[in-house]
Amino acid sequence: MALEIVDINCDLGEAFGRWHVGDTDDAALMGLISSANIAAGFHGGDPNLMDHTVRLAVEHGVGVGAHPGYHDLQGFGRRKINGTARELVNDIVYQVGALREFARRHGTNLQHVKPHGALYMEMAVNPELAQLFVTYMRTVAPNAYVFCMAGSATEKAAIEAGHPVVREFYADRDYDESGSIVFTRDAGRPDPAAIARKVVRACTEGRVTAVTGKDIAVPFESICFHSDTLGALDIVRHMREALIAAGIRIAPISEIVR
Amino acid sequence: MALEIVDINCDLGEAFGRWHVGDTDDAALMGLISSANIAAGFHGGDPNLMDHTVRLAVEHGVGVGAHPGYHDLQGFGRRKINGTARELVNDIVYQVGALREFARRHGTNLQHVKPHGALYMEMAVNPELAQLFVTYMRTVAPNAYVFCMAGSATEKAAIEAGHPVVREFYADRDYDESGSIVFTRDAGRPDPAAIARKVVRACTEGRVTAVTGKDIAVPFESICFHSDTLGALDIVRHMREALIAAGIRIAPISEIVR
Amino acid sequence: MALEIVDINCDLGEAFGRWHVGDTDDAALMGLISSANIAAGFHGGDPNLMDHTVRLAVEHGVGVGAHPGYHDLQGFGRRKINGTARELVNDIVYQVGALREFARRHGTNLQHVKPHGALYMEMAVNPELAQLFVTYMRTVAPNAYVFCMAGSATEKAAIEAGHPVVREFYADRDYDESGSIVFTRDAGRPDPAAIARKVVRACTEGRVTAVTGKDIAVPFESICFHSDTLGALDIVRHMREALIAAGIRIAPISEIVR
Amino acid sequence: MALEIVDINCDLGEAFGRWHVGDTDDAALMGLISSANIAAGFHGGDPNLMDHTVRLAVEHGVGVGAHPGYHDLQGFGRRKINGTARELVNDIVYQVGALREFARRHGTNLQHVKPHGALYMEMAVNPELAQLFVTYMRTVAPNAYVFCMAGSATEKAAIEAGHPVVREFYADRDYDESGSIVFTRDAGRPDPAAIARKVVRACTEGRVTAVTGKDIAVPFESICFHSDTLGALDIVRHMREALIAAGIRIAPISEIVR
Repeated sequence: MALEIVDINCDLGEAFGRWHVGDTDDAALMGLISSANIAAGFHGGDPNLMDHTVRLAVEHGVGVGAHPGYHDLQGFGRRKINGTARELVNDIVYQVGALREFARRHGTNLQHVKPHGALYMEMAVNPELAQLFVTYMRTVAPNAYVFCMAGSATEKAAIEAGHPVVREFYADRDYDESGSIVFTRDAGRPDPAAIARKVVRACTEGRVTAVTGKDIAVPFESICFHSDTLGALDIVRHMREALIAAGIRIAPISEIVR
Repeated sequence: MALEIVDINCDLGEAFGRWHVGDTDDAALMGLISSANIAAGFHGGDPNLMDHTVRLAVEHGVGVGAHPGYHDLQGFGRRKINGTARELVNDIVYQVGALREFARRHGTNLQHVKPHGALYMEMAVNPELAQLFVTYMRTVAPNAYVFCMAGSATEKAAIEAGHPVVREFYADRDYDESGSIVFTRDAGRPDPAAIARKVVRACTEGRVTAVTGKDIAVPFESICFHSDTLGALDIVRHMREALIAAGIRIAPISEIVR
Repeated sequence: MALEIVDINCDLGEAFGRWHVGDTDDAALMGLISSANIAAGFHGGDPNLMDHTVRLAVEHGVGVGAHPGYHDLQGFGRRKINGTARELVNDIVYQVGALREFARRHGTNLQHVKPHGALYMEMAVNPELAQLFVTYMRTVAPNAYVFCMAGSATEKAAIEAGHPVVREFYADRDYDESGSIVFTRDAGRPDPAAIARKVVRACTEGRVTAVTGKDIAVPFESICFHSDTLGALDIVRHMREALIAAGIRIAPISEIVR
Repeated sequence: MALEIVDINCDLGEAFGRWHVGDTDDAALMGLISSANIAAGFHGGDPNLMDHTVRLAVEHGVGVGAHPGYHDLQGFGRRKINGTARELVNDIVYQVGALREFARRHGTNLQHVKPHGALYMEMAVNPELAQLFVTYMRTVAPNAYVFCMAGSATEKAAIEAGHPVVREFYADRDYDESGSIVFTRDAGRPDPAAIARKVVRACTEGRVTAVTGKDIAVPFESICFHSDTLGALDIVRHMREALIAAGIRIAPISEIVR
């Protein structure tokens, strides 16, 4: 089950006001990916930056995705907030709508939705939340892909509802034996060459080595890395070169999942 | 130029979290108006309340409008923030998009946009802001009415761009001689009977008495009152009775302005 | 171990901006209690209200306490946020400092600190958080009481550090068999007479009936009720009358714990 | 009136959560200044960073000042918010209290208060605000210096009240003929050598060239530069060397103003 074609997605537009994060260069990254997860104001991003980032994505032909998070600027959406499923989905609706309005302003559609950080992790293990989220997507954004981890409650809810779903491989995160990523609030500065090798192997063999040393299966259609990981630009450049050298084409998700 | 038909609009959904404001009863008010300006999170309103209020409007056949404000929960959007026109319009795009997503979720369209409080007043006198706002509306919401004061920069920009515009009469605010309302952060508890008389006269004669005692002309298609004005429910009941007694029909704005 | 003297504490100043909560009348409540837990801006309260509420407390001779909460206005501090102990204590330091400055402005000292809502509950079961909090209190506010539940990690940490501690009885909340209160995000409108009986029995017998029907011991020096519980004013009036009728004196905590 | 001794102050701790601003290196800057204006959460800074920055200042023997701003994270406190004097001073009390609590935690006192950005500029021209602020300082922080511009309403109010006042020279801002600085939301990357010459001349001659080309008098006791100005570290290094070469000693403000 070697992949011949893959999408690369990245979180972008995660600065806020006068501040920025990591050594991010959104404009440079935009030229190297096929899908952008754009922060929508709750964990990062502000209306000015959302407008700018959506326009940048459109200029580069990159798919525009909403990246809703917990309402926690200080914690960058990496701290769980104990809201009800109904509250959290309302927060998601709000953020997706805001981001989609900027997409509309710049003449494009919403390609996908991918929850951010701790909200992504929570949805992966919370079937009530996953189901309520997918119900909302069916109603209002039936053609927008849901990005998630293979094996997550999110994937399960989307598949059951017949909603288009994209599974991700996490280039700059570690896996545990269950196939879930090891959540971290700070990923340090990983080695781009090691990441490139890990990604190519995942594409060609469908496997990754978990933190325990054991190999696990990782089915996916899109590779994710984080723009706030230190050295993000180097990481994606190494990764792209290695993928191309391995004969794997990078393409928009709409060419991969239909 | 007596009006035979008029819209009644009201700001609703302006509570936040566990808090409420004034003696507002949104559900009761919703049965008595034809257009709702729904707060979108920056000066009031939160995602849960937006969801609830939009659904309430749909159930009552009330037109759903976005009511974007300055980003200032503490000041309830009644304090000017000195942002650039570009920043302020991005804030509006964000809020309108968020509100519109809830409208879409509940199977309705965005009927209109009406800026809130100090942002409404600022746009009335700031042609750059008004023009940038109308340009955004032309692009993304060409059929959604812009609510504004007669004589404002907002009205002028909308008319020049050929955008559908609705002018308002402020039932619970005072007018100065220029035809602008006297902005207040707190309106006290006005007399419902006096308001009803003022409104009927405005509809039948097209005139109102300014704070100076002089009569001025007030052209309009919609009557506005504030749900956080003390006694709002009494005000709108008196007003409706008086309008009906005067032979004036209350109807959705789409029957009035085309 | 019948109590002859008891403190009554209440959360006050929990409105925000133009909004209020429940049917709260802070000025009336202030005349009926001996200790006020004043919200400090993170879950409720704003600088204007803090200034007002502290002044009100001073005028009524009520002890001024800081009431720090999770940084979550929308959730009113009743949703856990998954921060580290270090982060949460920094949030507490910030809020206590802010409140203490208003106390200083109005010529009084900080009498006590009582965490709010979900943060109070979290500290009760999180020894690392409790210890770090008490360490901060030892350093900077060695004479300010820590309010907590008997049997909580907070009480344990305070006692171990030799810090002055006050245990509370929750008049308007239910108990489980462990002696912990049953946390709720909404308490409804309880019966004032039933509360008064429960409180007097707790003072005279040191016992309360848990939700399971079993009696448990509840040692305390202060009685707590919530100003946002519906009917709060009635609750405290009934409670005071019943306490006085039972020969129990209501007094500042400084007369009770030394 | 050549200065023999001068204080250098700088805004520090102006990052937020995971974000930072400019190319700031607070730890390096702390070794090169004598007074730090530490952001207190409204325009920048968060409780974790405040704790960190105060400790850093104490370790370097740098005077700890509170740097309260408008409540506008997105605008970094550089947009005026149209609040009343009473509201704005309550915002200041809140922030000063929060910062002071961290100072107390790290065993130091509040050396000074300096409003930030647009609030600093507003106070300079708003006598009601300046007076209310100084009244608060007299009551609660009688020994903490007020930092301001010569000729401002702030200076006037402090002098009239007999409150200790420190006037600043702005190294990285331009002056108009009135002696006020030309407010900017973005200062670009100025030339460190040119700044060093400007500063030495200001110290030795008491004069600076305004944007109009005219020379004006600038009395001051402290030199200010901004840590978010690009190249801030270079700027202060050049400036220090030039001052020392000109025989001017850099010292804590307590050695200069008594």
